Amino acid sequence: MSKRLNIQCLMTGNEVMSGDTIDTNSAHIAQVLGANGLTIARRVTVNDDVNQLLFELSDMVRTADIVIMNGGLGPTIDDLTAEVLALLADEPLVIHPDAEAQLLAWCERRGQLPNEANLKQRLLPRSAEIIPNARGSAPGIDITVGDTRLFATPGVPSEMRDMMPLIIERIESQWGARAHANVMRLHTFGLGESNAQQLINNSGFDWPESVELGFRASAPTMEIKLTVADTKDLPEQQACADHIAALFGDHILGTGETSIGQSMVELLSERGMTLTTAESCTGGLIASLITQIPGSSKAFHAGFVTYDNAIKSSVLGVRQSDLDQYGAVSKTVVEQMALGALRASNADYAIAVSGIAGPDGGTIDKPLGRVWIAYGSSSDLRIIELTWPLPRVLFQTMVAAAALDLLRRHILELPPHCLYIQQRQNQPQKIDS
Amino acid sequence: MSKRLNIQCLMTGNEVMSGDTIDTNSAHIAQVLGANGLTIARRVTVNDDVNQLLFELSDMVRTADIVIMNGGLGPTIDDLTAEVLALLADEPLVIHPDAEAQLLAWCERRGQLPNEANLKQRLLPRSAEIIPNARGSAPGIDITVGDTRLFATPGVPSEMRDMMPLIIERIESQWGARAHANVMRLHTFGLGESNAQQLINNSGFDWPESVELGFRASAPTMEIKLTVADTKDLPEQQACADHIAALFGDHILGTGETSIGQSMVELLSERGMTLTTAESCTGGLIASLITQIPGSSKAFHAGFVTYDNAIKSSVLGVRQSDLDQYGAVSKTVVEQMALGALRASNADYAIAVSGIAGPDGGTIDKPLGRVWIAYGSSSDLRIIELTWPLPRVLFQTMVAAAALDLLRRHILELPPHCLYIQQRQNQPQKIDS
Repeated sequence: MSKRLNIQCLMTGNEVMSGDTIDTNSAHIAQVLGANGLTIARRVTVNDDVNQLLFELSDMVRTADIVIMNGGLGPTIDDLTAEVLALLADEPLVIHPDAEAQLLAWCERRGQLPNEANLKQRLLPRSAEIIPNARGSAPGIDITVGDTRLFATPGVPSEMRDMMPLIIERIESQWGARAHANVMRLHTFGLGESNAQQLINNSGFDWPESVELGFRASAPTMEIKLTVADTKDLPEQQACADHIAALFGDHILGTGETSIGQSMVELLSERGMTLTTAESCTGGLIASLITQIPGSSKAFHAGFVTYDNAIKSSVLGVRQSDLDQYGAVSKTVVEQMALGALRASNADYAIAVSGIAGPDGGTIDKPLGRVWIAYGSSSDLRIIELTWPLPRVLFQTMVAAAALDLLRRHILELPPHCLYIQQRQNQPQKIDS
Repeated sequence: MSKRLNIQCLMTGNEVMSGDTIDTNSAHIAQVLGANGLTIARRVTVNDDVNQLLFELSDMVRTADIVIMNGGLGPTIDDLTAEVLALLADEPLVIHPDAEAQLLAWCERRGQLPNEANLKQRLLPRSAEIIPNARGSAPGIDITVGDTRLFATPGVPSEMRDMMPLIIERIESQWGARAHANVMRLHTFGLGESNAQQLINNSGFDWPESVELGFRASAPTMEIKLTVADTKDLPEQQACADHIAALFGDHILGTGETSIGQSMVELLSERGMTLTTAESCTGGLIASLITQIPGSSKAFHAGFVTYDNAIKSSVLGVRQSDLDQYGAVSKTVVEQMALGALRASNADYAIAVSGIAGPDGGTIDKPLGRVWIAYGSSSDLRIIELTWPLPRVLFQTMVAAAALDLLRRHILELPPHCLYIQQRQNQPQKIDS
């Protein structure tokens, strides 16, 4: 195997340092490198300040084979990357013909003349090459200083993303391609990270050292990631995946990059079935999670956001007397909402939710976070009451995901009483055992 | 004014380095410090590796007054922070009574006995104090090494967030409170960063040096941030805000932390008016943006997601003959969708959208990204055709925001033909000039 490369990143930008911008570029750079068998040893983030940038770069070139910079290539006076790289390389800034040609082409596409600020973007350290920028005016910079190759990329995420494959090509052309890591991802719902880790620990499975186990929690789902560095370890990776499938089987939504909406669209499409939604407290979020997915129009024809009680009656046919007697957050109301949506849409399955998202509206009987969810078909409709005392938007997120997950379990004939339901359920249904 | 403090951050975690997790903790730490007049000089991110952590910390204590660490306090073998701080301070790890008491209380609240992994969390360098953790099992660590005070916080965002006010207190008690920066935020829609910067540059306004201008683009809105370090400069900050209001007036949704949904809910609530939605291509997203906002139930009673043509007819009364003749993405269909939703909901205003979100379904006549939007009341309904060729989810996001913005402009009697509409509009309406 080829030599392990020392790769360091230098991120620059006042808005990243102040926390006004969340740095998503770092993660993208790391993921692209990781997918190509390359890892980052160290990442430093500083303000747009010549002295500090030069200090960090001087330090990095002593140990790094590769430095990837991000930010500071724009047209304004805050953009210092070209200047700092010239100081580091002890070279003058000169008008670079490729940079100039790209800039003029960019201006021409936009039907404008280059202004003084843009013209600054032609200036590169003498020995630099450009990394072409298909979207913006700033070329990337590729320069070797001593034994270190430095790649400077723009802070604009889409422009940086376009450049990463070119940077990978140049790294591979200088150092050869690496063995790629083999990553397997399992998307789960209803499992916490610590629960999952504990269940794996307690399972007595002899986890092979060659398989790296990782978790990525991102409400409402969690990803379990199995990585092996070498293709010879793929059978062990598969053994781990099988073990996890046996442990968490019905919590697994799918493999690869998926989401709870996507797994529902796929499930419905495979079976040629359709879904409708009748939402009160989630206010359209369930419909939105479904319709984000390409091709969802086959599986989803109609959704109803019945926020007001009068609308629950007039649009979905919920009986006013039941609204008066039991309130909108009740078993009978979500049942009638679901049946009304099924009638109005002619769909095969419905999801109906009504709950108290807060911050106001909780009572002793019906506290904040209480929700009724109906799911299923007109001939087999299930209804459940849960309590999820969370801030409003997170409550909506978790309820929408749980509703989709409950329907998924119903369609797949999986047991509905998984861990998170047991924890959130107020009145467990009687189950014959 | 008190001495400027050199503050450095050390973030640790394999999942942050690999890009599996986007680091939002850095931004939060920076924002809390910034709100208290403190700035970060430098941030370093490394893997969970004893040698590397020790190397970076040894380097930091030479120049930093304060180091804030994040991550590595959990119960697993990957959690190295206490061990590394003990090495740095050249002290043994000892059972710390406060850490032990907190751990036992945490276990008791959860009705469980501490396991071996948890018991590791009692071990701190001898001279350390804990930073109490109200949510989790890991205490924060507060230790002084040489002239540097180090605060170690957990990687779990909610636990770190809880600790930040305590850390600010301890910093202020050692070094005194700083003059707080005074920040004014203006939320805009329909302006790009470069457009905004250019308009300000070209306006001939003599921008005062004491007011720092910042932009934070986060689709669909952009925040303009005006910061002054000293209260004596507040009049200049106000002068800049007034200038920006004059330049971008009708692009400004509001001040402070707001969103396009919130500004609509506030506008409707102030006037005692209600809104209904009839969504095709945005699939419930507009309703969801509204219902995310606390108190939206007063302004929003009903929304319809009519994804399928048959549903547009049966639920909203769109004429089948018009669907056949003009297609679902047409002026007459969004008009009928809006009027149907107004009838069904009895709302004052409606928004209706129908478009081609892709990735499939585009034609030469109706390309991907084409959308018709109707907005207004039954007596004054406006209809506009735009083209926004973007990936599916971003298209839905921008169309939802534009629809809300168009209605906002309509209600406030602002000109509808702002910059982004001019750029996206296919058939500009004839305007008498």
